Amino acid sequence: MFSTHGSPDEAFRAHQAMGQGVEFDTIRLLMSRWGDLAVDIGDDAAVLPRLISGQRVVSTDACVEDVHFRRAWLTPFEVGHRAAAAALSDLAAMGARAECVLVAFIVPPSWEGDLPQVADGIGSQVRAAGARIVGGNLSRGRIFAITLTVIGVAERVVSRAGAAVGDLVLVTGTLGGPGAALAAWENGNAPEAWARSRFAAPSPRLAAGAALAAAGATAMLDISDGIAADARHLGAASGVWLALDERRLPVGPGVEPASALVSGEEYELLVTMPPAAFAAVAERWEAEQGVSLTVIGAVESAGAAEETAAVRGHDHFGTDQ
Amino acid sequence: MFSTHGSPDEAFRAHQAMGQGVEFDTIRLLMSRWGDLAVDIGDDAAVLPRLISGQRVVSTDACVEDVHFRRAWLTPFEVGHRAAAAALSDLAAMGARAECVLVAFIVPPSWEGDLPQVADGIGSQVRAAGARIVGGNLSRGRIFAITLTVIGVAERVVSRAGAAVGDLVLVTGTLGGPGAALAAWENGNAPEAWARSRFAAPSPRLAAGAALAAAGATAMLDISDGIAADARHLGAASGVWLALDERRLPVGPGVEPASALVSGEEYELLVTMPPAAFAAVAERWEAEQGVSLTVIGAVESAGAAEETAAVRGHDHFGTDQ
Repeated sequence: MFSTHGSPDEAFRAHQAMGQGVEFDTIRLLMSRWGDLAVDIGDDAAVLPRLISGQRVVSTDACVEDVHFRRAWLTPFEVGHRAAAAALSDLAAMGARAECVLVAFIVPPSWEGDLPQVADGIGSQVRAAGARIVGGNLSRGRIFAITLTVIGVAERVVSRAGAAVGDLVLVTGTLGGPGAALAAWENGNAPEAWARSRFAAPSPRLAAGAALAAAGATAMLDISDGIAADARHLGAASGVWLALDERRLPVGPGVEPASALVSGEEYELLVTMPPAAFAAVAERWEAEQGVSLTVIGAVESAGAAEETAAVRGHDHFGTDQ
Repeated sequence: MFSTHGSPDEAFRAHQAMGQGVEFDTIRLLMSRWGDLAVDIGDDAAVLPRLISGQRVVSTDACVEDVHFRRAWLTPFEVGHRAAAAALSDLAAMGARAECVLVAFIVPPSWEGDLPQVADGIGSQVRAAGARIVGGNLSRGRIFAITLTVIGVAERVVSRAGAAVGDLVLVTGTLGGPGAALAAWENGNAPEAWARSRFAAPSPRLAAGAALAAAGATAMLDISDGIAADARHLGAASGVWLALDERRLPVGPGVEPASALVSGEEYELLVTMPPAAFAAVAERWEAEQGVSLTVIGAVESAGAAEETAAVRGHDHFGTDQ
């Protein structure tokens, strides 16, 4: 169904002026699923609009079968939803709104029938983010993989490197769901619905990220390695030492704090900001953003990269968990 | 060596502040190979510089083992070179200079030892293009694949859609090499050196593309499906009918024009421009650009998308080859 060599990406370009041949059928199908979400596809590259204000940011993120998910765990729609949400989460972590998405598929024959639903899942997240699909690539291959490139615009870029002593450490949402879902699946059990949903259908915190940037966040990242590891990443980038209070972690039902600390792929935001900046938004935050924002610690001192986060509570964690 | 889940892209980010753990070793290795080519890696997304002039363009392109190449055909360096050249060629076809590249790898264990050479091959092309590597993703997987996203800046964007009746049709370089190399390999033979080089180490025509845009090109694309098919794509996008003279095709040694017509992955530029615009650059072209520019036909009339290119010569081609 796709050309073996020649140019699979030609296919995406073919939206502008379809050529003959079955290799374009799959692209026509994708375009029909995406409808008005897919714009300006049909040239060698997409032209980005001129910026009025802000700065463009870009990130790429892959979702590979049997590495990031197993086919038995997710519906095809969820595979697409999750891949797109994970990629868009990187824009949220910069304080950016989403602008454009490029979607590169590697599709084995066994997945061809599911591609429309995967495309719908991607489309649902692109639409929710207010973005557009401006290009892509379609290739055969022996595994199923989606590599998404996301481009956004930040009015105020927030990196990982700005945390300062005295800042509060905060996190959006509740933690532990993806870890609980993975643990259940890996033990041969069905995860609880809330945990499964947190793994299968995450929400990139784009509005929250932009609001935190506007409110004066000093450093931010999304929790993809687990909050313990990501706190160390943020601390290392900022050259500070983060003290987290395990008892304050916002955990899902039945989740132990120690599990929440290492639950990856959360796609929640870990953020630092001065207490006064937090106080200015705290009262109205949850009503306006629809997601919780919880103080879980503080930036205590400048520190070496080897020990940039620690957790107070009944259990300290090592650096190699 | 890479994390099984969690976030492989975290690894690329880790350049800014390396975390602990073997999952970062491969990234450190890539960064050491790329040196000053890799900049600003270490956050959730890369921040693009503000533009002074021109327009940003973006494209994504995948190179998958056993789909786009076989491992026995190419050295690891060539795998990287070719993947990067193919992606950068899309910028050339828009008249853009290259600015930033993001590199997403899927790496099976059998390829880990070759990754430094693959990285060197990518780096060689990024360096030659004057671009930088600003992000990426690293994931395990059962096949080797590289998905490159390329971002460029065009002072004057040239799409596929501007060809006008009376324009000349031109092509850069010589054709038929990749097709000859593939034919040899698929027949169990070693390709001739020139043909092999055209497949294994193509040059994206970035300077030529920008010069053609500045000279008044009306439509342009890179030849990835073969010049016959790509002429139809350009004709369909522009709503015109291209007449190509097979006898004027610039072919490599021993290549039949009929083979050159269907030789894909050429990464040469097919371009239309008014005769006066061509005349203004023709005399100094090859000396200044180091690549030939050959008139191979003309835009003859407005036409339906079904029949937008035809070739004069001893052999006409159908619409489905």
